[in-house]
Amino acid sequence: MAKVQFTKMEGIGNDYVYVDATKDDLRLSADQIQKLSDRNFGIGGDGVIFIRSSQKGDFQMDMYNADGSSSEMCGNGIRCVGKFVYDHGLTNKKQPKIETGAGILELDLKVNGSNKVEQVSVDMGKPILVPSLVPVKWENENPIVDQPLAWLTEQPGYSSYHLKFSAVSMGNPHCVIFVDDPDSFPVREIGPMIENHTALFPRRVNVEFVNLRGKDHLYQRTWERGAGETLACGTGACAVMTASHLTGRTGKDVRIDLRGGTLRVQWLESGHVLMTGPATEVFSGVIEV
Amino acid sequence: MAKVQFTKMEGIGNDYVYVDATKDDLRLSADQIQKLSDRNFGIGGDGVIFIRSSQKGDFQMDMYNADGSSSEMCGNGIRCVGKFVYDHGLTNKKQPKIETGAGILELDLKVNGSNKVEQVSVDMGKPILVPSLVPVKWENENPIVDQPLAWLTEQPGYSSYHLKFSAVSMGNPHCVIFVDDPDSFPVREIGPMIENHTALFPRRVNVEFVNLRGKDHLYQRTWERGAGETLACGTGACAVMTASHLTGRTGKDVRIDLRGGTLRVQWLESGHVLMTGPATEVFSGVIEV
Repeated sequence: MAKVQFTKMEGIGNDYVYVDATKDDLRLSADQIQKLSDRNFGIGGDGVIFIRSSQKGDFQMDMYNADGSSSEMCGNGIRCVGKFVYDHGLTNKKQPKIETGAGILELDLKVNGSNKVEQVSVDMGKPILVPSLVPVKWENENPIVDQPLAWLTEQPGYSSYHLKFSAVSMGNPHCVIFVDDPDSFPVREIGPMIENHTALFPRRVNVEFVNLRGKDHLYQRTWERGAGETLACGTGACAVMTASHLTGRTGKDVRIDLRGGTLRVQWLESGHVLMTGPATEVFSGVIEV
Repeated sequence: MAKVQFTKMEGIGNDYVYVDATKDDLRLSADQIQKLSDRNFGIGGDGVIFIRSSQKGDFQMDMYNADGSSSEMCGNGIRCVGKFVYDHGLTNKKQPKIETGAGILELDLKVNGSNKVEQVSVDMGKPILVPSLVPVKWENENPIVDQPLAWLTEQPGYSSYHLKFSAVSMGNPHCVIFVDDPDSFPVREIGPMIENHTALFPRRVNVEFVNLRGKDHLYQRTWERGAGETLACGTGACAVMTASHLTGRTGKDVRIDLRGGTLRVQWLESGHVLMTGPATEVFSGVIEV
């Protein structure tokens, strides 16, 4: 049994159990991580993030999914890492560099009057639009922007669905579809059909159902690969901004409302995507596992 | 904002946030209780239980659902109240009396070698079998034991369903149905149909789908009124034992496996039902709400 000090944090509803392992380099088994993540029998969360010391950056983000498997990076999770290391006094840098499974990412921390982090910006890298790299099985290598999902329309009972999709990878593949009203759209029916249509998306796909709420203001619902509908998806929001700009619907600096909260997503001159959003400490505690 | 010290506890998967309010008599608003109960933005749980001092018993169990509404009693919750008051040194009584919205209930605490409570027995009172009191709309006042759910069979597409039900109230109404295999039974389809069939169950009903696993050994899945499928339901387990004995399937002392764990349920000579099961402390912490 290990006695674990932890802090529960969330970024627009993506919630993880955060453990400061900078001093003791605590390691837990997959079973222990499953137990911590269980919402009835444990603390509950989308997974566990250990904050470790790093040779390459200021800190390492060592991240695990709720099933105990290792994960590379989470845009909403890394914002909370930024808040944790600053608010808990592990650093006084406002641009800490975090080593992740997706490389070293630099954060930009926005601090309030009480010297606590409220908003964090993360450089999410460049969107990938080459179909074979997203990956999408496609006849050429031109970016897929607002192309008909003809396959769906041909399914029995779906002839009234004339959806168009854009394909963007932010390290993971996204299929972005603009619809009239995401709230009334049958996301839980159509989402898994598209997710698992491996003839088109060989590694399956995350599906974002989006509409325009105002000038440079979008709303999205997310069907996450392997997870179903979720409150928020950081890479999904970046893919949505990319697709929205490429289809001429918005500029390169947008507000995106997700079910769990709001993000600002910008396409910088460098070609990189900058995502800014809140990071919130929910509670702290001690558990034996 | 209030800074709240809490302990998260669970009884076969029924999990609540427990707050010792014996000293400060802390009261929280419905909004604050909703926040504490939220599994993404708060601590997460089926609700919040305040432990208060009591004039009538040793302690009061002041219980709220996750939506902030007040609740009378929960059989799995009150076991954890017993563990809390003993393990946290609020009492050294092993038969504490707890004041609840359903009257004063006496617990029986089983303590392990480390002087910590492991199992708790609760007197759940007498089952109510009079149809008008369950309530079920029925032609007479004889107990309803293995009677055909004829209405369901008459629904288009359900002619192959020849289910029989028994009706038991343990303070809340239960419809107990024996099926061949609860795991493959379409609980999420048939459960809500029965729950909401107010022509028969005017206050709606909890539905338990049960089979016999061995001598005096049952397995149940629970469709809870207003909550959908849940891991465990204490009053449901008592109703299942009652129906199982009345239909001749088991004796009066049974083991019942639920999705979240196992209970022992006994029908005592007094006519009361005694439920015994585990109570587990998961973690403790501090939150600001």
